[in-house]
Amino acid sequence: MQLKVKILRFLAGKPIAILSEETAGKINVHVGERISIFKDHKRIIAVIDVSKGGMLKTGEIALSNEIVASIGLKEDEIVEVGIAEKPESLILIKKKMDGGVLKSEEIERIIKDVVSNALTEAEIAFFVSAVYRSGMNDKETEALIRAMVSTGTQLHFKGEVVDKHSIGGIAGNRTTPIVVSICAVAGLIMPKTSSRAITSAAGTADVIESIARVEFSIEEIKKIVTKTNACIVWGGSLGLSPADDKLIQVERLLNLDPKAQLLASVLSKKISVGSKHVLIDIPFGKSAKVSKAEGLELKKDFEKFGKKFDLNIRCVLTNGDEPIGWGIGPLLEIRDIIHILKRDEQPVKDLENKSLFLAGQIFELCGKAEKGEGERLASAILDSGKAYNKFQEIIEAQNGKVPSMKEIESRLGIYRKDILAEKSSKIIDNKKINLIASIAGSPMDKGSGILLAKHIGSEVQKDEKVLTIYSQSQARLNNAVDLFKKIRPVEY
Amino acid sequence: MQLKVKILRFLAGKPIAILSEETAGKINVHVGERISIFKDHKRIIAVIDVSKGGMLKTGEIALSNEIVASIGLKEDEIVEVGIAEKPESLILIKKKMDGGVLKSEEIERIIKDVVSNALTEAEIAFFVSAVYRSGMNDKETEALIRAMVSTGTQLHFKGEVVDKHSIGGIAGNRTTPIVVSICAVAGLIMPKTSSRAITSAAGTADVIESIARVEFSIEEIKKIVTKTNACIVWGGSLGLSPADDKLIQVERLLNLDPKAQLLASVLSKKISVGSKHVLIDIPFGKSAKVSKAEGLELKKDFEKFGKKFDLNIRCVLTNGDEPIGWGIGPLLEIRDIIHILKRDEQPVKDLENKSLFLAGQIFELCGKAEKGEGERLASAILDSGKAYNKFQEIIEAQNGKVPSMKEIESRLGIYRKDILAEKSSKIIDNKKINLIASIAGSPMDKGSGILLAKHIGSEVQKDEKVLTIYSQSQARLNNAVDLFKKIRPVEY
Repeated sequence: MQLKVKILRFLAGKPIAILSEETAGKINVHVGERISIFKDHKRIIAVIDVSKGGMLKTGEIALSNEIVASIGLKEDEIVEVGIAEKPESLILIKKKMDGGVLKSEEIERIIKDVVSNALTEAEIAFFVSAVYRSGMNDKETEALIRAMVSTGTQLHFKGEVVDKHSIGGIAGNRTTPIVVSICAVAGLIMPKTSSRAITSAAGTADVIESIARVEFSIEEIKKIVTKTNACIVWGGSLGLSPADDKLIQVERLLNLDPKAQLLASVLSKKISVGSKHVLIDIPFGKSAKVSKAEGLELKKDFEKFGKKFDLNIRCVLTNGDEPIGWGIGPLLEIRDIIHILKRDEQPVKDLENKSLFLAGQIFELCGKAEKGEGERLASAILDSGKAYNKFQEIIEAQNGKVPSMKEIESRLGIYRKDILAEKSSKIIDNKKINLIASIAGSPMDKGSGILLAKHIGSEVQKDEKVLTIYSQSQARLNNAVDLFKKIRPVEY
Repeated sequence: MQLKVKILRFLAGKPIAILSEETAGKINVHVGERISIFKDHKRIIAVIDVSKGGMLKTGEIALSNEIVASIGLKEDEIVEVGIAEKPESLILIKKKMDGGVLKSEEIERIIKDVVSNALTEAEIAFFVSAVYRSGMNDKETEALIRAMVSTGTQLHFKGEVVDKHSIGGIAGNRTTPIVVSICAVAGLIMPKTSSRAITSAAGTADVIESIARVEFSIEEIKKIVTKTNACIVWGGSLGLSPADDKLIQVERLLNLDPKAQLLASVLSKKISVGSKHVLIDIPFGKSAKVSKAEGLELKKDFEKFGKKFDLNIRCVLTNGDEPIGWGIGPLLEIRDIIHILKRDEQPVKDLENKSLFLAGQIFELCGKAEKGEGERLASAILDSGKAYNKFQEIIEAQNGKVPSMKEIESRLGIYRKDILAEKSSKIIDNKKINLIASIAGSPMDKGSGILLAKHIGSEVQKDEKVLTIYSQSQARLNNAVDLFKKIRPVEY
């Protein structure tokens, strides 16, 4: 049936189409069911809302911005609309829930249905939970990686393309901007795509977004990388692995991150972006995402699957016992990064040392430095001030500007609460710190989060400040403070 | 923050609130996040869509019909709106996903959050899948039943209140309208609340809805039962167990029906409706929901939990090897029911015999008949024509009218396809028949479904008709025929 497009300009977080009761009756669809919308050779699936008032006339269809953007529609344009049959994937998801093993083509089917919106968020949640509970064997994981790559866009850059990835979960672990700047100075090509927060309070994309754009088209990315050797952008905007982006949206609801999906998420994006040498940072520890044993297991897995896809992968296990840096939350993390890059006196030693270590490892991995010499090269580049200049160059190429400390301070949440120690403190727990920072508004509110006053091992006296919570609303600050009292990330 | 209500009259299948970008910014909420809406002492939670056009002014809030209905709002009314914090239930759902055992108060917390919309469909899917995978122990199941009852409405009727329930999954197993009519003639009180389709092609509520209203207020139900001794309505409309209604909506996506939830779903509604004597029909067989061993297990569970809640429960295991009656789909099933009640010559013997057996069991359970005499009493009532009169009375009390065969025929789907046997047939599979009937449009399209021409054991010659698929749209008919060819519910 042909319908006329009405652009209502609303964001629903998913593809929604609104029809009048009469139109829905004519097509024979009901609320919550799915329709296919065809334009040229593109097809997208949308979930039906029904308007009972005079909002729409018969023969009209109103679409959420998510759809308008993805197939490019204009007001009053005519589209072909039909009933979308119940996706076959549902039977496959049920099979996985029942502990079955999926064939490669079955995984491909599910991933295609995720990408085309044929599956709702609740249905994707069933798939995520099935993978979370049953895991995936090697063949399934390989098929998942392949399906994610094949449903996405692939990039190709000239030069020595390197990449890094840190397993999430460590609050404030924002090494990427520093490592990328150092590597780009050394002439390496580093088209870094990052995620938004999954299990931690902020992802690198959320952080950079507080001072620059992070959503670009493929063409724009190519220009930025050609100009500066690097970029620090949100992977989701490039469609490198659109399936992964949607799975992450659902995983985030419960802070889940099943291993097969973690492997596929990281590797599919590295493959799609055309990386040759990939360093993977696996922080382990009590409040990290993985224990040492699990970290070693993950290292083996990354190396195994890397080989299958021709990636030169190195995994390093790092200390993930506590947050890194002082700030947790977009602008609070930017502050730490600028202090390091500008060689300010204010010390953020843990973040600086880790960044130098990772950059050094990349230099050694791609042959830019001899074994044992990488960190020294990284350190020299950082001290020369060139890394800071490169960071400014990248941020400006991404339509941003590196702010002054004063500017940062003015943008931090004005609702603040110092938390004082009741006794002497021992441990600052990552998971809990992440949770509190996200309740305070991170990463959506760029100026919210936590500023640590102490790290592990520091002696804190009674009534001495342990940390400060920043928020952009009184309600969120109250919620964060209540949560702090309840879950106590500081051990006495 | 106070906002002015705009009634846009749209159905989203869930509580949605639309705000302008400016308003969302002022409250500090983002797409997909949740807000609390307060009116008098009621609070409901809604998920945010953001309008980027001029659809709404700053300070206005547009709400989906689901919200308008549930707290009763008028155009231009002022409501208080605030950020809804992330529900604590998420941590509890994660705990259950990780194989943990939930405390009674934790289950209560989750169920309360389900009822108040604090959880999204995807989050409820995680809970359903956790229960599906891990099961629930006795204490958890009891807490689930109690939480479902306590978050719902409770009814009280005078007289001997009886009830029945059939475990779903058997195509065409529409004994309820016949059993209810017979029991009501005998003076028993039977306020029957039924579900819509979960795992089968139609639920009793879907079927009765094709000829009468099934959604009523508590006050209306009381009038209907006082007048006729009975009713056959949709349980969801009464809010007897609103949590269960929402869980079912999510389970339906994958045709899941975990045991603890099945027990809680059935028992919570029987308790809430004030039943004393409850007969539970457990069909077992190869393509039924349960095997004989599982059926016996379920029987034990029902009896165990029935005792805890003071219900006089009897479970009967019945043959669930194949569909019952000839029709599968709302109006096709009504046809079978009327044939039996009117004592037409057209035989629907399997459905008739089963209905008499179940009514007889209820008579014996509540002491209306001596042991071994129940079925005879039921049969006498059916033959007297009084059960048909009672059915008409109930349908009319529910604002309906029992249609003539001619009227039914005129309302059946005009898109039809006879399926002919390729060889001689052996088995007609329940699950597959249900699936095909639902693809054809059942239960939403009342005239769609399947009309069987043969039952198990009947000899079918090559090119003889096995069944006819009815649909109200060519597209759905095609999908159903394609599915038939693919999954072959008829064994040759």
